[in-house]
Parts: sequence; C-alpha cells; structure tokens
Amino acid sequence: MTTATNPRILEHPEREDIRLEPVLHALSDAVRLRIVRDMARGEGAEFSCSHFALPVTKSTSTHHFRVLRESGVIRQLYRGTTKLNTLRRDDLDALFPGLLDAVLTAAEAQTERLGD
Amino acid sequence: MTTATNPRILEHPEREDIRLEPVLHALSDAVRLRIVRDMARGEGAEFSCSHFALPVTKSTSTHHFRVLRESGVIRQLYRGTTKLNTLRRDDLDALFPGLLDAVLTAAEAQTERLGD
Repeated sequence: MTTATNPRILEHPEREDIRLEPVLHALSDAVRLRIVRDMARGEGAEFSCSHFALPVTKSTSTHHFRVLRESGVIRQLYRGTTKLNTLRRDDLDALFPGLLDAVLTAAEAQTERLGD
Repeated sequence: MTTATNPRILEHPEREDIRLEPVLHALSDAVRLRIVRDMARGEGAEFSCSHFALPVTKSTSTHHFRVLRESGVIRQLYRGTTKLNTLRRDDLDALFPGLLDAVLTAAEAQTERLGD
C-alpha cells in the first residue's frame, strides 16, 4: 500500500488532535475568515478553492487553505484533480461548543460596522 | 503637553478601533491564552505582569502583553514603575458578544481534556 505517500491524500488532524490555539490562529486572518464564513453559509456543502473569489495569488490561497486544513477547521479532499473543501463544523462544535458561531457572529457584526 | 511621547503612556486601540482578526490572533497563543484566562477569573482586577508565573523569559513575556494590549484584549497602565493589566471584557463583549466567553469555555474544555 502506498496511500501514506499519495500526494492526493491530504493530512488532517483527527478530531481529538484538534487544538484551540491553531484553530484561533487559522481564524485570525481576514482571508481565511472570509473563506470560513462563505463555507458556513453553505451548511456542509463542498466548495472548490476556485469558488472563493479571493484577492490573493493562487499560492497564497493554497497556503490559506492548508492552514485551515492543518488546524482542523476544514476538510479537503481530491475529486479528480480538484480539491474540495468542507467546514468541519461537527468536529469544532463537539470540541468547542459555541466557538465557531461566536466567531461567525463577531465577523458579521464587524462587517456590518465597518464593511468588508 | 508631552503626553504623546511619554513612555509611561501606553498606546491602546479605542473600542471602535478593535478588530476581530488581531483579537483572535492575540488569543491564538498558549501563553497569552493562559494570561487571559487568569485575568478573566479575576473579574476586573488589576494584575502586575509578574503575577503570572509564565514559562518564558521577561522579554517574551513583555512581547505577549504588548500583543494583548495592541489588539485591544487588555489594558495596561503604569502605577509608579509597575505595569498593571486589566482585561477589556466590557469592550470585547460590546463588540463581539459571546466571543470571549466561548474562547474561555473552549480553553477550559481543552485543559480538562488534555491538561495544561
């Protein structure tokens, strides 16, 4: 078996290995927060990276998605050559009840107050 | 007047200038989170930096307190030569209702799950 080195298999922390500090770090960037807010509105939907019209280069975008994945905020899997992204809401809500909603609400409040 | 350049006057964002992303960044570090949790237990009390027995050097500690201050999470003021720290709970709760409590609860849950 060679799945461990298959570049199409992306590494994710198991639920029990997700830590609060990296999750907060992942959410502490405006671009990543925007991705997470978009995904939260999609309620479990899978999004390709190109779905998000981000004001950054492709390599920066890839970096942001990796930070989100490695912290446990999103799940990424390949379907063919396309990476699909889903929010790990169940895992986050189980570990840190109310946290994701509080961050999303805070982000909405800030957008209303200041614009995007 | 020379207060603007007085080194004993520490710069803080006004409430309306506090932003979610730097607040989340400030909270995304284990040492800073520990400081904030200790201060939250104190419910408005003022703490000297030396109150917190942190496993870091003095200059690293100073850096962490500065990140917390500049993001708007804490207020620091001099009393004589001692810096006193208070949590800006009112400001954070007004801007981002429920956020600080969700982070504190998540931190407690993680400590219970994994230890400090």
